[in-house]
Amino acid sequence: MDDGTMDDGAMPYQNRLALFPLTTRIQGDGDGARLTIGECDLAELAALYGTPLYLYDRATMDAAADAYRQALARHYPAAGGVTYAGKAFLCVAAAQWVIEQGFHLDCTGAGELHIAEQAGVARERIIMHGVNKSREELAAGLAKAGVIVVDNVTELSALCELSQALATALPALWLRVKPGVAVDTHAYRQTGQEQSKFGMAPDEVLEAVAICRQRGWPLSGLHFHQGSHFHNPAPIGPALETVLDLTAHLAQVHQWQPETLCVGGGWGVAYHEDDLPQPDIDHYVAFVAAALQAGCQRRGLRLPRLQFEPGRSLVARAGVALYRVGATKQAGTRRWVLIDGGMADNPRPALYGARYSALPVQAPQRPWAGTASLAGPYCESGDVLIEELPLPNLAPGELIAIPASGAYHLMMGSNYNGARKPAVLWLDASRANLIQRREAVTSLTARDEPLPQAATDRSLPCPN
Amino acid sequence: MDDGTMDDGAMPYQNRLALFPLTTRIQGDGDGARLTIGECDLAELAALYGTPLYLYDRATMDAAADAYRQALARHYPAAGGVTYAGKAFLCVAAAQWVIEQGFHLDCTGAGELHIAEQAGVARERIIMHGVNKSREELAAGLAKAGVIVVDNVTELSALCELSQALATALPALWLRVKPGVAVDTHAYRQTGQEQSKFGMAPDEVLEAVAICRQRGWPLSGLHFHQGSHFHNPAPIGPALETVLDLTAHLAQVHQWQPETLCVGGGWGVAYHEDDLPQPDIDHYVAFVAAALQAGCQRRGLRLPRLQFEPGRSLVARAGVALYRVGATKQAGTRRWVLIDGGMADNPRPALYGARYSALPVQAPQRPWAGTASLAGPYCESGDVLIEELPLPNLAPGELIAIPASGAYHLMMGSNYNGARKPAVLWLDASRANLIQRREAVTSLTARDEPLPQAATDRSLPCPN
Repeated sequence: MDDGTMDDGAMPYQNRLALFPLTTRIQGDGDGARLTIGECDLAELAALYGTPLYLYDRATMDAAADAYRQALARHYPAAGGVTYAGKAFLCVAAAQWVIEQGFHLDCTGAGELHIAEQAGVARERIIMHGVNKSREELAAGLAKAGVIVVDNVTELSALCELSQALATALPALWLRVKPGVAVDTHAYRQTGQEQSKFGMAPDEVLEAVAICRQRGWPLSGLHFHQGSHFHNPAPIGPALETVLDLTAHLAQVHQWQPETLCVGGGWGVAYHEDDLPQPDIDHYVAFVAAALQAGCQRRGLRLPRLQFEPGRSLVARAGVALYRVGATKQAGTRRWVLIDGGMADNPRPALYGARYSALPVQAPQRPWAGTASLAGPYCESGDVLIEELPLPNLAPGELIAIPASGAYHLMMGSNYNGARKPAVLWLDASRANLIQRREAVTSLTARDEPLPQAATDRSLPCPN
Repeated sequence: MDDGTMDDGAMPYQNRLALFPLTTRIQGDGDGARLTIGECDLAELAALYGTPLYLYDRATMDAAADAYRQALARHYPAAGGVTYAGKAFLCVAAAQWVIEQGFHLDCTGAGELHIAEQAGVARERIIMHGVNKSREELAAGLAKAGVIVVDNVTELSALCELSQALATALPALWLRVKPGVAVDTHAYRQTGQEQSKFGMAPDEVLEAVAICRQRGWPLSGLHFHQGSHFHNPAPIGPALETVLDLTAHLAQVHQWQPETLCVGGGWGVAYHEDDLPQPDIDHYVAFVAAALQAGCQRRGLRLPRLQFEPGRSLVARAGVALYRVGATKQAGTRRWVLIDGGMADNPRPALYGARYSALPVQAPQRPWAGTASLAGPYCESGDVLIEELPLPNLAPGELIAIPASGAYHLMMGSNYNGARKPAVLWLDASRANLIQRREAVTSLTARDEPLPQAATDRSLPCPN
């Protein structure tokens, strides 16, 4: 298949297009063909803003948001809602998109709360997460969050002491339940299992509810999360059963039921053509909604407000990373294509062995010429974005677009080897707007102070 | 051994002290005992500067630098030198320490060159590395570097075109040879193997030397690097043989011998007590110096200047990361100690499965109470710094010190979950000076622009 044709006549590069944003097109023919997204010419954007460059396609984000809204309306008769995961991709513009959607925003720590505040997100729309919130972070949460998801009883006590010390009213509290069941994903992304660092076992939840009920604290929800980037909702079933058993017990013992049940999330996306088709949002929401309704009915519980955390499935596919090819080299049997970004803007391949795909911007329909590996410029052999992907011959100076780059790239990115964080563009119906400027080299020394004079004389000579 | 005693009467926590900086002491007795470094009280520093906090002990850095100087003087009769790896830990103060030592500074890319410039490093002391230097980076190298290590022939051409276009003289050029042999380390840190993305195979080196000789370009060195954090110098032997065979061939065919031979580096350090004793710098330098002298003698080559890149062995042990314990929790059989930093300031455990050790700051000699796992506050199950290490009982609010934290932590660190980069202190004979301020939350939005207005009206209602 390395000649770029498939048995059924479809060209294999067309599969890869399904990984890209919805508005991705190949415009023109032959050598003049070019990849466009949101009616924007990627080569023009790269020339204007430099590379590496990150692009977000508004239409793709809107469509994913609509899919959740429509699925909730279709499958769940009571109230439902969506929480955007700040950890996946957060900046002022992203938070303002969340406001437009009427979604909630999940913030971890004082840093993300600051971004939400700068964007103007209403307090009641901010849900604060975190497994080990410091006193400083709890104080920021008290000042800025509408909901704090409490991870453990130690935190519950600290939070309530702090609210008294600061004479600040408590926001709504949800408790994070550890259901003892994880989803099928990379171990780093599993969170629901019994030995997880996250959340409370059912016994501890009982204790926390008792404390809240005694003190009259504004407890209003339960939350669980089993891990992110899963493709099969089945493990949510037994977790939901555990949480509903607990809920029935709480209703009986404490006469308390959660107004909101947040079932976490982290629905997957396709990163590589082997992951296609794209996981179906409607299927995911339908499964959870049905299980929740059946479970509540069996136990005589009223339906809670059903809150989803769609995670990367709102934003990963909307994002594309654009790189320029520097050198290419043949090393033994391996063809290296060296590009100008890598683990500093996308550490996921190094962290999780994540498999990505790619297309050249110019003439993406060119036939493949065997496999190539795409590596970045950093002094680290782990700085390889893609291992052994069928690709055409690629020349120095060409542009390469990597799809499914919208989540957990820039947020986990570093300044390794002095890398500057890339510029980010927002693409919307042939308009490209800068939403994050490329980092300046001066920011690398912005926190620096000079070396203090040595406290003692040194007498050893310098090397010759 | 979990009771804190060993058969020979030595307390096992004393082993861990050998991972810490040379000036580390336990001062006081019983519950009042405290860990100090460079005569500084860690608890006072944490109270003053907050946590997570990074500490660098000058005496430990000086001692490592002296060890290389002395070993070179002892084992190598011709000139020798040391290059500090900016990628391991670079800031203005670190670069100024490099100046004081009379070392060279290895910079990758325009970002690190900027830091070197801010620190006042002399041009002739700057060696520029990089596997895929962009045109912009090559221009920065032409302006600021004394040596450019050329990775491949494409880069050599680009560099020389650019020097003509900019009417800038070429700095000294070294060629990066791929010796076809890697050292024994994590695959991400191996660089010398045949299929590596780094450097030129011997044939390509011949071509590059021919070009340089024809055009009269200032070629003066050869460089190879087989990978970093190795503990056994043996694989350097065959690599050196390959490079000396090549050198002999170059001497014959092109009447050219390198003035400098850089043998790369990345000598290891102990991260965990199981890695002790600390790898011996003298042994490493002696091995290379002997192999080089014997190899040159056999081939009738004159001794080149011998340049080492000690990498983390200059700086890792000098660095300590200081964290505060938040919650602790028992999850199944696992004891979690949740601290206020993690993969955002130290991604090495998540990237490489690196094994660290730790001691509490208060009463570090307390007996152990089984094993505990140290996890950070980030929403990621991979955010675990240490798995299952014997530790005493630890209470919320206690301080934990992690040794061997001086290299590849902060440089690979991120702002994940809105984390701010930690403050960094320089400890020297009871003085603690701030060399990097803690990042402010405002820096998280410093590059942001607001969301552009949507290009089209949206009619779908917000969720209920």
